[in-house]
Amino acid sequence: MAERYGHHPALALWHVSNELGCHNGRSYGERDASGFRTWLRSRYGDLDALNSAWGTDFWSQRYSAWEEVQPPRVAPSFVNPTQQLDFARFCSDALREQLRAETAVLRRHTPDVPVTTNFMVMGHFSLMDYATWTGDLDLVSNDHYMQATDPDAHIELAFCADHVRGLAGRQPWMLMEASTSAVSWQSVNAAKPVHQLRRNSLTQVARGADAVLYFQWRAARAGAEKYHSAMLPHAGTDSELWEAVVGLGGDLQRIAEVTGSTVSSPVALVLDYEAWWGAELDAHPSDQLSYRRTAERWYRALWEANVGVDVVPRGTDLTGYRMVLAPMLYLVTDADVAALEGAASGGAHVLVTYFSGVVDEHDHVRLGGYPGAFTELLGVRADEFRPLLPEQTVHVAGDLLGEATGTSWSEPVAATDAEVLARYTDGPSAGYAAVTRAERGEGGAWYVSTELDLDAVRAVVAAVCDAAGVGPAVTASPGVEVVVRHGDGADYVFAMNHTDAEGTVEAGGHDLLTGSDHAGSTTVPAHDVVVLRR
Amino acid sequence: MAERYGHHPALALWHVSNELGCHNGRSYGERDASGFRTWLRSRYGDLDALNSAWGTDFWSQRYSAWEEVQPPRVAPSFVNPTQQLDFARFCSDALREQLRAETAVLRRHTPDVPVTTNFMVMGHFSLMDYATWTGDLDLVSNDHYMQATDPDAHIELAFCADHVRGLAGRQPWMLMEASTSAVSWQSVNAAKPVHQLRRNSLTQVARGADAVLYFQWRAARAGAEKYHSAMLPHAGTDSELWEAVVGLGGDLQRIAEVTGSTVSSPVALVLDYEAWWGAELDAHPSDQLSYRRTAERWYRALWEANVGVDVVPRGTDLTGYRMVLAPMLYLVTDADVAALEGAASGGAHVLVTYFSGVVDEHDHVRLGGYPGAFTELLGVRADEFRPLLPEQTVHVAGDLLGEATGTSWSEPVAATDAEVLARYTDGPSAGYAAVTRAERGEGGAWYVSTELDLDAVRAVVAAVCDAAGVGPAVTASPGVEVVVRHGDGADYVFAMNHTDAEGTVEAGGHDLLTGSDHAGSTTVPAHDVVVLRR
Amino acid sequence: MAERYGHHPALALWHVSNELGCHNGRSYGERDASGFRTWLRSRYGDLDALNSAWGTDFWSQRYSAWEEVQPPRVAPSFVNPTQQLDFARFCSDALREQLRAETAVLRRHTPDVPVTTNFMVMGHFSLMDYATWTGDLDLVSNDHYMQATDPDAHIELAFCADHVRGLAGRQPWMLMEASTSAVSWQSVNAAKPVHQLRRNSLTQVARGADAVLYFQWRAARAGAEKYHSAMLPHAGTDSELWEAVVGLGGDLQRIAEVTGSTVSSPVALVLDYEAWWGAELDAHPSDQLSYRRTAERWYRALWEANVGVDVVPRGTDLTGYRMVLAPMLYLVTDADVAALEGAASGGAHVLVTYFSGVVDEHDHVRLGGYPGAFTELLGVRADEFRPLLPEQTVHVAGDLLGEATGTSWSEPVAATDAEVLARYTDGPSAGYAAVTRAERGEGGAWYVSTELDLDAVRAVVAAVCDAAGVGPAVTASPGVEVVVRHGDGADYVFAMNHTDAEGTVEAGGHDLLTGSDHAGSTTVPAHDVVVLRR
Repeated sequence: MAERYGHHPALALWHVSNELGCHNGRSYGERDASGFRTWLRSRYGDLDALNSAWGTDFWSQRYSAWEEVQPPRVAPSFVNPTQQLDFARFCSDALREQLRAETAVLRRHTPDVPVTTNFMVMGHFSLMDYATWTGDLDLVSNDHYMQATDPDAHIELAFCADHVRGLAGRQPWMLMEASTSAVSWQSVNAAKPVHQLRRNSLTQVARGADAVLYFQWRAARAGAEKYHSAMLPHAGTDSELWEAVVGLGGDLQRIAEVTGSTVSSPVALVLDYEAWWGAELDAHPSDQLSYRRTAERWYRALWEANVGVDVVPRGTDLTGYRMVLAPMLYLVTDADVAALEGAASGGAHVLVTYFSGVVDEHDHVRLGGYPGAFTELLGVRADEFRPLLPEQTVHVAGDLLGEATGTSWSEPVAATDAEVLARYTDGPSAGYAAVTRAERGEGGAWYVSTELDLDAVRAVVAAVCDAAGVGPAVTASPGVEVVVRHGDGADYVFAMNHTDAEGTVEAGGHDLLTGSDHAGSTTVPAHDVVVLRR
Repeated sequence: MAERYGHHPALALWHVSNELGCHNGRSYGERDASGFRTWLRSRYGDLDALNSAWGTDFWSQRYSAWEEVQPPRVAPSFVNPTQQLDFARFCSDALREQLRAETAVLRRHTPDVPVTTNFMVMGHFSLMDYATWTGDLDLVSNDHYMQATDPDAHIELAFCADHVRGLAGRQPWMLMEASTSAVSWQSVNAAKPVHQLRRNSLTQVARGADAVLYFQWRAARAGAEKYHSAMLPHAGTDSELWEAVVGLGGDLQRIAEVTGSTVSSPVALVLDYEAWWGAELDAHPSDQLSYRRTAERWYRALWEANVGVDVVPRGTDLTGYRMVLAPMLYLVTDADVAALEGAASGGAHVLVTYFSGVVDEHDHVRLGGYPGAFTELLGVRADEFRPLLPEQTVHVAGDLLGEATGTSWSEPVAATDAEVLARYTDGPSAGYAAVTRAERGEGGAWYVSTELDLDAVRAVVAAVCDAAGVGPAVTASPGVEVVVRHGDGADYVFAMNHTDAEGTVEAGGHDLLTGSDHAGSTTVPAHDVVVLRR
Repeated sequence: MAERYGHHPALALWHVSNELGCHNGRSYGERDASGFRTWLRSRYGDLDALNSAWGTDFWSQRYSAWEEVQPPRVAPSFVNPTQQLDFARFCSDALREQLRAETAVLRRHTPDVPVTTNFMVMGHFSLMDYATWTGDLDLVSNDHYMQATDPDAHIELAFCADHVRGLAGRQPWMLMEASTSAVSWQSVNAAKPVHQLRRNSLTQVARGADAVLYFQWRAARAGAEKYHSAMLPHAGTDSELWEAVVGLGGDLQRIAEVTGSTVSSPVALVLDYEAWWGAELDAHPSDQLSYRRTAERWYRALWEANVGVDVVPRGTDLTGYRMVLAPMLYLVTDADVAALEGAASGGAHVLVTYFSGVVDEHDHVRLGGYPGAFTELLGVRADEFRPLLPEQTVHVAGDLLGEATGTSWSEPVAATDAEVLARYTDGPSAGYAAVTRAERGEGGAWYVSTELDLDAVRAVVAAVCDAAGVGPAVTASPGVEVVVRHGDGADYVFAMNHTDAEGTVEAGGHDLLTGSDHAGSTTVPAHDVVVLRR
């Protein structure tokens, strides 16, 4: 293919494979077993190191030959957790090898044509560690589809866009796939109103996409995706949808000058695939925790306040961020701990939640009290986890929150070197700390030991923002989402109205979409978008 | 067996096999794969035709050798829908081949002895396309068991009986199996009151059965069905149940003269196995729709009004029906479309619901707007499906219905050549048509684009009946079910009281069960049955 | 191992294997099939006997060669129930063979060292028939873990302890495993308050344990059980948990003299693994019944009244018990029937519930009316089962109960030779008996034909206790559990307070835990335990 099309004048970009790992992210056959062993040899060198990393003394699992090692297949009881974790790493690496093999051929034939592949930073998909893939690509691309049953799907979209930008090193990226209306793989595939089609796409641009594409051009008459929406529906060009797609094409032309501009954020939220895999292994204190839900819950409070967030992998240089969130960062290396400590002592405010810092990279518990890696940074210590039953709610009180509730989790947190901002007033951790704050150098370190209700999350986020001196770049009326892209000669203020009523953004300038000019503040009609050059 | 018993004086009828397809309706092994290929070669002739029918250009599924074709086995994503549909056809045909092979032997040995096999027209069983089987039988037989958790199981029974009669070409048929009381394969196997045992059996006769049999004679002491009820229970002859069975035997003797009489109905409801298979394939706009539930929902309103309905396969000659219902008739051939158009222009009133006429026999979407095949007949067009989330309800209003609700589905229906009888007042299709009516020649064509609440279904059915001049053959007090069988010299009015109180049927004559005579109107005691010759 | 450690001075007891059958209680492979056939040959001798026992005439299942017999593997419909029952027996016996094989080696090397293995008498675990294993052990041991979602887990604990004692022939036994706090294999692994750690362990002692051990010594850093609590937690010795474990060690030393003392109870509750397996086979009248739940429901009323109960296997000598409960004793041999009849005629009061005495040891129904085996003993007869739908409740009334409710089950019980104490007032068995009592010699026989609400169960139990002259050995304030162990020279009264408030036990003596002496009555602080020597 590279030979045949490599010099075609229309060739601008190679897109390798499609959604790598989507349907084959884990595979347990004989060839996989063999590949897994090769990967483990390379990681551990010898079996002693593997036995030590996997803790095989427990349950008499010691390996004395590489051939004895298997993928974590179905077993009558729990499978070794480090084996599971390493298998996740291996599978992600194996598919990256496929990407590399295909990319190598293309680069040999067309060294000047950039190469990308479409990630799936979307909902609960977590099978590939994309942070380790980006170095192999010239451009980061993503597919994003919304969940019809999620009333906050627009916040989920923003979270994913900010995550893709974080993976892309804060550079522009490409939205490879989205849907104009319904998809076909959910239980009920709700249609999208046409105003949403437009607003979703422009939000992706606002958050750093330099291109927004759709799957698919024309709705198929046959096959497994014939009820997936397209740019041209079954009904033909005599349809609302076709008109909206054509309209969006015009909009994109009108805002073409934003291409290449970037987004910069005062807040980093650390989201990491290894921590995710680790946090959701089986035989844990509770299977009710969700890594992704927890991260989006804290993100949401910042989204509502129009405070910019980069969602970044573990290992990202945190210099320059005034605030760092580490929700449920279960697995951390010593270097990660040092990076967070460094951020705090450098003046940032770091917020850590329950079930963070529990294990090292081998999923070995950090002893001496929870949250193992962060007891010193946070100035807290709990000698036990006390998760809550599915229907159980505990109460939390303190000046910062007033009266609030916690679910899913609690811990008998003692503040060894921190101020207690809120305490449990009932439940298994009654009397212990639910929210703490420690002064650390110029900055601070905050700990939250339960899944707080949303209002309480908002209050904690507001307090941390206040301490860190962080706020929105541009203010707006409630329900109006604002993002600023910074270009060489101008800034671009994107304002997306998610409400049924007219809203306002406190910014003026030239609206690229309508061509009109505004001073000081600009009206954003219901469900509409404005893009101001200023 | 044919040699040994073929000339036994007690031999009246051969019953071939048992519930063909009940436990092996789909089979995915190597021999099935081979049989499927043979069947496909016979259907398509060459691979180009198969590739075209299956739309294999999509997802790069093109076949270049027959050996590549497989049954629709478990796959990491959705399997080709036309492959699934053809496999359903193949499996039904393969079991019909078994029936034919056994029947051929019997016919060779005993050409004068009729042959039957027991269908399973019952609840959600849909694996066999019985409409293609009846030509191989001398007599249509059915097994029918009631679902303990269904409060309207007596309506479900009537629906099935009317369906068996439709399959039997409106001729008498045989109830091969039913239960005297509890079955043993449901979650909770509730017992039947003895009055229900009797009423159920006589209802089957009313609706065309010339014989009603039970599974099983004597309750087994051992084995997998030992808790299935029988004519003789574990308790022995000193039991209510045994007495009731003996009583029913007497009743059947008393009404023996109804044998051979037939039922004729003013309404046809088209229920088709291919449409059923197609409608419930995966990757559809919504998995909340149920073909069978939808059909029974519309039937129910007619049952309540004691209006006679033949439940007939696609392809049935519709001449003579004054009203035709096509609920969720997803898959239709061009001939089917012509048949419905012909019925309307011939004076019938045709009612079509959402998700009808969407695809052709290859499951290819009919382009140009929904409901593809019927836009002209109905004078409506929607450019998108807008299914509703599981808990979502929309409101519908119009003179015909007053205020009503819709669930599961909606469409932005524009009336291109029809009168709008009700519109959505909220939800994703607000302002568009929910119910329409078009004049077509002497008849009419009605469309309903959402799953209306039961009262609204009743109102629509009443309006269509009124337009079509259709009503009950005999009226009765509420809760009294009435069916008329027409014999050579007499009509037989069956009235079944489903209430705890005395009811009335507005018919007189000689009650075959009690021997008493009635003029004008007859009392039907609570839970009792009367059979009037008039 | 026996050679190496057999003469080690610290060797006090061999613990063979671990939780035999926990993860491999049923196995369906080729070697299992072969072993099953050998076991069947030994049980039945010839195929005619097997065919008769399995009722293979039904569904044409007759075997003509042993090789045709298979384990009850996955099948498209229900598998032969006697085949399932025999396979359960075989599996239990096969693991007992493993125990015997290992024990034989140990006994050869160290004839004087006792041998045990840890049972799992806990919750719904039912795969092994421990009653047939105890003869192979020198000491009965058990593992017991509590279910975090069960608000009555302390009653469940007591029930299991009384069951282990019943299996151990009422002799002292050993608690091999329990948890100090959370386990790691439930959905949410709630922590235990430290007062519960202590009270649970001392309750096990109260009910006959002469040793109480924990899994595990030190919480692992790695592996599948690293979040299972231990005596030494991840947090180290600076923890509430470690202090509590050390404290318990002191308590056990203080009460060391209770070792060897025994518990004797006026009531026997027959709990049998074969009856359990049989009662929960598939294709039954209802899958809503639970053998274990039913047994614990009746036990609970006695626990609340502090009436002592031995939970004993079928076949236990019932002499000396003043009251015998047989809840849902589905499968009984003729000898079992005679034993219960003998108990009644010998002066005991026997209480039997619905779905008892239905089948013999081959799972063949006992004909002539339900409850087959017990119609004579109880003086009742029902000619049908009438199970209730999941949400269905019926009402029951009578002098004994006032107004009560029944769920899950009902029967049209006629009292042929018994007094009716309560009748159904509605539902499918309206007018028939729900509770009956028959005088039998010096004793009596009671029948309950529905799952009564808890208050009604309490009322029935109180009436039977009253008739049998049975009451608590020692009374106490509500929520204080009392058990008496009888030693050679003294009795030991254990009182466990399950409430948040101070309670009282009506006994005096020397409190072994505190060293203080009490006369007449003793205070039991909230959540605390007292152990009085008197």
